[in-house]
Amino acid sequence: MSTSHSSQSHDSPSPEATLQGPGLHGAGRISDRFWSPRLELVRDVVVPYQWEVLNDQVPDATPSHAIENFRIAAGEQQGTFHGMVFQDSDVAKWLEAVAYLLQHERDETLEQRADDTIELIARAQHEDGYLNTYFTCQAPGERWTNLCECHELYCAGHMIEAAVAYFEATGKRRLLEVMCRFVDHVETVFGHESGQIAGYDGHPEIELALMRLYDATGEPRYLKLCRFFVEERGQLPHFYDLEWERRGRTHHDFGAGTQPFMLHKKTYSQAHAPVHEQDRAVGHAVRFAYLCTGMAQLAQRSDDKALLATCRRLWDNMASRQLYVTGGIGAQAPEESFTTDFDLPNDTVYGETCAAIGVVFLARQMLAAEPDRRYADVMERALYNNVLAGMSLDGQHFFYVNPLEVDPKVLADNPILEHVKPVRQRWFTCACCPPNLARLIASLDRYVVGCADDTAWVHLYIGGEFELPLSAGTLRLHQETDMPWQGAVTLTIGADVPVQARLALRIPAWAEGFEVSLDGERLDAEMSSNGYLELERQWQDGDRIALRLEMPVRRVYPHRALRHDAGRVALQRGPLVYCLEQADNGERLHDIALREGGIVDTLEGTDALSGMTLLRAEALRENAAGEALYRFDDAPTYTRTEAVFVPYFAWANRQEGEMRVWTRELPRRA
Amino acid sequence: MSTSHSSQSHDSPSPEATLQGPGLHGAGRISDRFWSPRLELVRDVVVPYQWEVLNDQVPDATPSHAIENFRIAAGEQQGTFHGMVFQDSDVAKWLEAVAYLLQHERDETLEQRADDTIELIARAQHEDGYLNTYFTCQAPGERWTNLCECHELYCAGHMIEAAVAYFEATGKRRLLEVMCRFVDHVETVFGHESGQIAGYDGHPEIELALMRLYDATGEPRYLKLCRFFVEERGQLPHFYDLEWERRGRTHHDFGAGTQPFMLHKKTYSQAHAPVHEQDRAVGHAVRFAYLCTGMAQLAQRSDDKALLATCRRLWDNMASRQLYVTGGIGAQAPEESFTTDFDLPNDTVYGETCAAIGVVFLARQMLAAEPDRRYADVMERALYNNVLAGMSLDGQHFFYVNPLEVDPKVLADNPILEHVKPVRQRWFTCACCPPNLARLIASLDRYVVGCADDTAWVHLYIGGEFELPLSAGTLRLHQETDMPWQGAVTLTIGADVPVQARLALRIPAWAEGFEVSLDGERLDAEMSSNGYLELERQWQDGDRIALRLEMPVRRVYPHRALRHDAGRVALQRGPLVYCLEQADNGERLHDIALREGGIVDTLEGTDALSGMTLLRAEALRENAAGEALYRFDDAPTYTRTEAVFVPYFAWANRQEGEMRVWTRELPRRA
Repeated sequence: MSTSHSSQSHDSPSPEATLQGPGLHGAGRISDRFWSPRLELVRDVVVPYQWEVLNDQVPDATPSHAIENFRIAAGEQQGTFHGMVFQDSDVAKWLEAVAYLLQHERDETLEQRADDTIELIARAQHEDGYLNTYFTCQAPGERWTNLCECHELYCAGHMIEAAVAYFEATGKRRLLEVMCRFVDHVETVFGHESGQIAGYDGHPEIELALMRLYDATGEPRYLKLCRFFVEERGQLPHFYDLEWERRGRTHHDFGAGTQPFMLHKKTYSQAHAPVHEQDRAVGHAVRFAYLCTGMAQLAQRSDDKALLATCRRLWDNMASRQLYVTGGIGAQAPEESFTTDFDLPNDTVYGETCAAIGVVFLARQMLAAEPDRRYADVMERALYNNVLAGMSLDGQHFFYVNPLEVDPKVLADNPILEHVKPVRQRWFTCACCPPNLARLIASLDRYVVGCADDTAWVHLYIGGEFELPLSAGTLRLHQETDMPWQGAVTLTIGADVPVQARLALRIPAWAEGFEVSLDGERLDAEMSSNGYLELERQWQDGDRIALRLEMPVRRVYPHRALRHDAGRVALQRGPLVYCLEQADNGERLHDIALREGGIVDTLEGTDALSGMTLLRAEALRENAAGEALYRFDDAPTYTRTEAVFVPYFAWANRQEGEMRVWTRELPRRA
Repeated sequence: MSTSHSSQSHDSPSPEATLQGPGLHGAGRISDRFWSPRLELVRDVVVPYQWEVLNDQVPDATPSHAIENFRIAAGEQQGTFHGMVFQDSDVAKWLEAVAYLLQHERDETLEQRADDTIELIARAQHEDGYLNTYFTCQAPGERWTNLCECHELYCAGHMIEAAVAYFEATGKRRLLEVMCRFVDHVETVFGHESGQIAGYDGHPEIELALMRLYDATGEPRYLKLCRFFVEERGQLPHFYDLEWERRGRTHHDFGAGTQPFMLHKKTYSQAHAPVHEQDRAVGHAVRFAYLCTGMAQLAQRSDDKALLATCRRLWDNMASRQLYVTGGIGAQAPEESFTTDFDLPNDTVYGETCAAIGVVFLARQMLAAEPDRRYADVMERALYNNVLAGMSLDGQHFFYVNPLEVDPKVLADNPILEHVKPVRQRWFTCACCPPNLARLIASLDRYVVGCADDTAWVHLYIGGEFELPLSAGTLRLHQETDMPWQGAVTLTIGADVPVQARLALRIPAWAEGFEVSLDGERLDAEMSSNGYLELERQWQDGDRIALRLEMPVRRVYPHRALRHDAGRVALQRGPLVYCLEQADNGERLHDIALREGGIVDTLEGTDALSGMTLLRAEALRENAAGEALYRFDDAPTYTRTEAVFVPYFAWANRQEGEMRVWTRELPRRA
């Protein structure tokens, strides 16, 4: 994606190789009061810390060994492989985040570090193109023998993503070439010919990565290989069974469940049926989101309407039956998986940061395939709530798991809550979430707008400068806003020549109303059926659109099938979901009940929450009624009080304490 | 305990060896419209089926191998040990239940079967008195090397209980002598002398069994050995560590957790501190209840006030902070354990049938030590709800786990609900609950009354004939009642000569009021501080007390610290806790809300629930509000309806479906 920055690059990536097909998203430059500081945290704190971790330079962290694995694989150091079987992907995600940072701002030291790392990776590549430090160092004879469990193509996928991003950011082709060589090798290994493997990875990722490689290179073989992996999935006889038999029914140990293992593995990794027969979101939540992201890209780039319908069906099940109000997915922790429709427990939830990031990835591809605010609404919900809650305000601590209800007192004594942490952690042995957050925030400019033919969609209201390559010419879009705190957005057009085009502004579902004006003159525009406000005209340099989205506090009520939320309400203002914290409201948050229709007003946050809009709600608090565990015929009484709500993303940035998103609400009259 | 039956026995057990100390409970004969049919189910269905299981005669059940293990241990059959390390206790529990049945009614075939089994057990005993088929057949060199994990003294304890019960029922001393020999051997193995083991069993049971053996034989060495085991528990250096080191840090595998193992084992089995330092119910719920039962017996028989205070402290924590409204304990499934104060989840609960039975055992001993209705109220709550729910109405199916909230739709897809079954099972590999139910129901007569000096306490209102051995002479008490359906009880005295004594009738906490009359004349009696109505006089044959306990439907409200029940209510009538079932109320029971102060009336059950009193409550039902998973500012509306509640013990006897004890309640005005 050709940006103003990439034109400063050493080599010149061919712009025609990027941004193919309708509805794709351009890159830009974020300049936003809310997001820019977070981007800076990623640049100044997260990515440098991550580098230290990868190089085992953090004294109190479990050594990552990830860089050392590459040195050993390259034959430059003695030693054995250490870490997860997918340890290589940590290096890939770091490189990908670095690429996005470099795209925003040159940093010679960082770029040199990345270049050196890429050279190291290149030296770890085998003659035939193969690249994976686990199988090079630890199990050299076992390449491609356990796709189900060993993340071989998953690691390849992440490195491809890094390669494409680094190429797009710097124009440097070194890693891109390394990965094209690897993919060319993969292409010889997989297929239906004799001696080839008709299989696919247990952890989807290669699919979306191949589509990015196809976008970057225009090479149709990559799209074809992606299609192969998507279409093989879940076919019978089942590949997992076949490779399991071939390797003598052994398993790579990463925590088997008690269910019949092979059957379980299939559902867990969305391989229980061919994708076109799947109609529900099942299994490991991150795997699901990554698979569907790749499928949506493939459907859109190859104009495959049946595959797109599959994506839509799976999205709809996820979004309308299995999505937390925070935009999280994955209701159960033991398998980090979906459970079943309308089953969304608030305390035992997994809600992995990576899974919500996967929802953002998938929403972006669905928007590219068919712009509709339902995708953008969910993307925004996930981004501003579950995703953002994954990182502390100081950028130094992270949540893997994002509960909607926590009582720190009960966590230690119940193993089913073992995964829930009441405070963010410095880093993790399985370090997927922090680097994933880093690469998403660093590339957030790619989620804001989309273009196809003569239409540019504005999906997210985030300040910055975005390029809109339209059929009649390229526009620049300058956004200014105080979102998520205020609903006003100013969009200023930059154009070298006037361009006839349609500008489609998303009207979020949370907006109670809106007003739009052009150059100070109010427009009587109507929202189209897909939830966008379409403004068509010949755009001139300096055209200025003022959009005002009404952003009152909304009371969110759950579908009546959501049994964990029955009788409860959540508060939302703009894209932000709010929660109660013990820091403001004392212990026993379950004691607090809002009154139906009670007043909720806003409040300025202070100290750690300075600059944020908090909410203050009329509430009732259950009175003490003696020490009896159970008492007869003595209904609770309530005292009027005020309850303070803080943005969910900002929870656990003060003292350790209780938190709760869904609050009881008492109807006016029963 | 000398009963009218035991006088028919072959040998004559010495009556002075039983019923020592204040407040102990006599045996009797149940003749009760509610309980007699259940006793018959145990006699006609449960115990015969159990015998078939023990002998591997049930085609569709996992072979128990328990009897065969004894044959192999006796050298009468070739083969290897199979089953749990505590498989012997299944035979012991069967024998104990048989003993109680024979005490009620002679059955020559059954008695012959028991006698044969006892002879087999005797032949499996070693020369030195040792008896345990696992360590005899499977690990002959490893006796007493893993007390922490291997249930060696636990199995001994159950066989001692069987021996005492069989002796009391039949007067036959064969098994009693076998077990006395074993205990004499145990006495040489454990102690503080050189070469002895200063340790104790990981699963408490031997303690309460030794107290029963002491009661039956009057032999003070057994009380002393019990005290040794109680007092050693949790001392430092820790016995589990020492024996672990001695056997080379190996574990007997029965499912280790991920927590540091040895530390975990200590809390799990109440060995984390000396018992006098313990102040909370922790660890495995059955172990806790069994340990405290033995401790309470020891405290009472030896007049150990400090130990009694420990029991009271542990009871109070359990009963006032960790007890389900159904009388269940054990809030978490992975360890079958307590979690922490005021943490009582309704759906992920364990609530093992055996643990509630343990609560009944413990309550009985606390009542013996200090009669107070708070113990009897909990005993009754556990018995009529959690315990009784463990068995289907046909006596052929059993619950191990007793949830207070079930939605069958969500069980399969969430591993944290894997232990919850929506229908009772035929039998279990680890078959502890059905035999435990059998022995409790068969011995229920021992829980009804208690005597000490000149006072007889009536703890439970269950029809039958009970002997009251008082200081001034023995009375017979004949109870007639329709409990738990009606609150009227008639108590008729049988006396060969007039006896001056105090009769203390429990006034249950659930009774809103009471009336009592003697021979038709109303008495103006007051309840004493311990919750009993004390009637003192010279009792004559034919004296007739009519007690009427007011038994309206009571609304049960939870302590405000119980976050899972906030805003909810349970219905109780008499000792019975009620629940909603899908069979009467359709799907989505969480949609139903009672109205504060709404009318609840009674209703006759039909079909499977025929003869039971059901409840019908004014209720509101949330209306559908579209298909959106989350909707803005559109508070739920409700339609007036009626909700039908059934006794908790009777749930899951119709179709598979949802169940819920705690129902939302909407206050009259918010």
